[in-house]
Amino acid sequence: MANDKKQVEQITAMEEDFAQWYTDVVKKAELMGYSSVKGCMIFKPAGYVLWENIQKEMDRRFKETGVENVYMPMFIPESLLEKEKDHVEGFAPEVAWVTKGGLNDLQEKLCVRPTSETLFCDFYKDEIQSYRDLPKLYNQWCSVVRWEKETRPFLRSREFLWQEGHTAHATAEEAEERTIQMLNLYADFCEEVLAIPVIKGRKTEKEKFAGAEATYTIEALMHDGKALQSGTSHNFGDGFAKAFDITYTDKDNKLKHVHQTSWGVTTRLIGAMIMVHGDNRGLVIPPMIAQTQVMIVPIMQKKEGVLDKAYELKDMLKGFRVKVDDSDKSPGWKFSEQEMRGIPLRIEMGPRDIEAGKGIIVRRDNGEKIEVAFEDMESKVSELLETIQKDMLERARKHRDENTFIATNYEEFKDAVENKPGFIKAMWCGDQACEDKIKEDTTATARCMPFEQEKIADTCVCCGKKADKMVYWGKAY
Amino acid sequence: MANDKKQVEQITAMEEDFAQWYTDVVKKAELMGYSSVKGCMIFKPAGYVLWENIQKEMDRRFKETGVENVYMPMFIPESLLEKEKDHVEGFAPEVAWVTKGGLNDLQEKLCVRPTSETLFCDFYKDEIQSYRDLPKLYNQWCSVVRWEKETRPFLRSREFLWQEGHTAHATAEEAEERTIQMLNLYADFCEEVLAIPVIKGRKTEKEKFAGAEATYTIEALMHDGKALQSGTSHNFGDGFAKAFDITYTDKDNKLKHVHQTSWGVTTRLIGAMIMVHGDNRGLVIPPMIAQTQVMIVPIMQKKEGVLDKAYELKDMLKGFRVKVDDSDKSPGWKFSEQEMRGIPLRIEMGPRDIEAGKGIIVRRDNGEKIEVAFEDMESKVSELLETIQKDMLERARKHRDENTFIATNYEEFKDAVENKPGFIKAMWCGDQACEDKIKEDTTATARCMPFEQEKIADTCVCCGKKADKMVYWGKAY
Repeated sequence: MANDKKQVEQITAMEEDFAQWYTDVVKKAELMGYSSVKGCMIFKPAGYVLWENIQKEMDRRFKETGVENVYMPMFIPESLLEKEKDHVEGFAPEVAWVTKGGLNDLQEKLCVRPTSETLFCDFYKDEIQSYRDLPKLYNQWCSVVRWEKETRPFLRSREFLWQEGHTAHATAEEAEERTIQMLNLYADFCEEVLAIPVIKGRKTEKEKFAGAEATYTIEALMHDGKALQSGTSHNFGDGFAKAFDITYTDKDNKLKHVHQTSWGVTTRLIGAMIMVHGDNRGLVIPPMIAQTQVMIVPIMQKKEGVLDKAYELKDMLKGFRVKVDDSDKSPGWKFSEQEMRGIPLRIEMGPRDIEAGKGIIVRRDNGEKIEVAFEDMESKVSELLETIQKDMLERARKHRDENTFIATNYEEFKDAVENKPGFIKAMWCGDQACEDKIKEDTTATARCMPFEQEKIADTCVCCGKKADKMVYWGKAY
Repeated sequence: MANDKKQVEQITAMEEDFAQWYTDVVKKAELMGYSSVKGCMIFKPAGYVLWENIQKEMDRRFKETGVENVYMPMFIPESLLEKEKDHVEGFAPEVAWVTKGGLNDLQEKLCVRPTSETLFCDFYKDEIQSYRDLPKLYNQWCSVVRWEKETRPFLRSREFLWQEGHTAHATAEEAEERTIQMLNLYADFCEEVLAIPVIKGRKTEKEKFAGAEATYTIEALMHDGKALQSGTSHNFGDGFAKAFDITYTDKDNKLKHVHQTSWGVTTRLIGAMIMVHGDNRGLVIPPMIAQTQVMIVPIMQKKEGVLDKAYELKDMLKGFRVKVDDSDKSPGWKFSEQEMRGIPLRIEMGPRDIEAGKGIIVRRDNGEKIEVAFEDMESKVSELLETIQKDMLERARKHRDENTFIATNYEEFKDAVENKPGFIKAMWCGDQACEDKIKEDTTATARCMPFEQEKIADTCVCCGKKADKMVYWGKAY
């Protein structure tokens, strides 16, 4: 059968070749496809619905904090992009340029937005007059373009989907508060919804966003021990406001510059979810984000009453997202499809089970099989989905902690990077020369200076000078 | 007060200058702003939330018919756009071209999608092998770009938001069925949600979509008597399938071409809603789509107990979307703001009302004032929102019907176009020469050949030859 063939081929084991495992899973679970536009991907239904589910829950959380959605143009005139010096330097080398509209050359070329700080600033300049107009708490869901050379599904592509929040405040304190508030929102979302534990911290000067005063980040550890930056929140201070002349009249009747922030997460979150939870059978999707939470697989479905009972069970479970796989594939195929797609629970039920008034629930995350009487199904499914969500987070946290190492000198550091894939906690003097040397020697980068600092040693792991900053280091996607 | 100033200026009366009235309403109700990118608009929160509400309800209806969402790249390589002859001729003159990526010139230029038929075809070519892979019922929510010269908020801009559905089917019958199904879905949505009555029909050859076999449309009549094409659904037959070589192996083991459709609505729907329901006080938003359905305006709110009672009433009405305007503006300002924003119901309540245990509900659509005891508020609000939704549709239908005229000869036709803004029903021989002449002489175009045909006369309103097609004509946006 044509559909089954796709499943026959095994996916590469992750221990053998993690990158190939990842590519195989994305393909076999039908999350994404390649387009004939180099570096741009196609979100297939099973991939896009994960983004829709992320959007729905995150958007709800945004709105609870007073954020409103808007939509800005996808084009930025060259002169606008150039207004903030650091910003244009950071982005100009990787933008796509529109030079023709219709049959004519454009007078001024337009870039396809790589991010929209400059558009929001241009808008705020006119929109904000008085302290009464503050704060502005705007967000947009859209796609952005960055002309990357190497691309990988969900992790890096020339066009990707994201949200970008842009706020303007009366004071520096308010801006800092919002920056941290959104970082916390992202961290809570990752842990509560995606079951991904994250390290919250601040980026070094070298790694911060082009034009920001400070960049905060959440960093997650993938199954292969590489780090993935999973969301960032930037405090711009009044740098953009000065470049764009965004001022307001305060209560004291004085003209002041606003203070701004921006924050974003992208479809990378889906990549993180795959690489944190997936296994050699395919995806493992956290129940909260799964399109289908329970797949009912009837056994010997042609026997009278089996399919009827399956549909009846589906009705009983109507509080959850449930499907019956009533296709003409064999149960074995159905099992491996459900496993490949990462559906949290499977319920197997054949004629003998039905006679005995029970079905067998199988957990995707750990393979556990549980016999459950039909009348207890609803409460058991509810309990199991909650348990799985918690267990997945704990398992990921355990993996992260077991793969977080301490280095007090450069030998230990280099040994860790080479032999122990994971996070490395080590002290840093604050000098960018050490950061550069570490990257040069080991390819590891400073992931963040965590909010929860520990005093591991007195001296910089690289140069041996006095150091008071503990940094998470690692190879990163 | 800075915020109040914006409201002080009156909007232009629609009888005086409808275009200016429209621009004023869009600005004063803060739906959209102009960006520094020529021809591109900014959706402000009050404008974007209308699109979000449209999306949410329409997406639900799509999914009920089996449609799944995907996301395709925003770029189309020139060679891909050129594969279907009629299609490229229709769109090439109005697309934006990306010619540089990063610091390099591109080998092949990419257009920013004006519509995505070619991308979906390119995708389906590989995705569809067997009859088991059919139908494909995909949709995407995104923005598209067309390099228009004249632009107007919501109605025509260089970038606009829309959805585009693209389906592939085994047979011509199935494709035709889906084309009509989606047209009906759009028509039902317009009537039930936006309270806009529409004429369903087929476009003439001259007006159909570039590359389609048949284009179906819903046409609405605006308050000024101009028509607005509000949604279209296209049957492509197997034209694109042949150009892109999209084939499948059927049950009889023969290789066949698929049959395709596409269908879309845009943010024009918001423009339609403004121009069908708005009045000289501003927007009138149908309750089903309104972000805020009820605005509670406390009178003498500094008097003890007034604001408390207002919040209490808000809690009582928690089944609806309710806000309390507790700003320090005067009640008069609050009334005109609520009216400008088109919020369906206002509840006024001052100390004396509270003492008497009642408030005054004011309907936005007709100004009617109703005294209601607090204990009856919930049921009365529920009843009124339903009534308003129905009344708005009926009022719009009455306006449409009263401004639909019949012309049996060319004199009547020309007189109607000149003196009676509205739809004109007239017979047409089917010859494009007549269509061209009518447009040349009067600027009116064939809006559609309605499904509900009437025999108005035996001869073409233009050339006098035998005619059996009744057409809706009109000036259009």
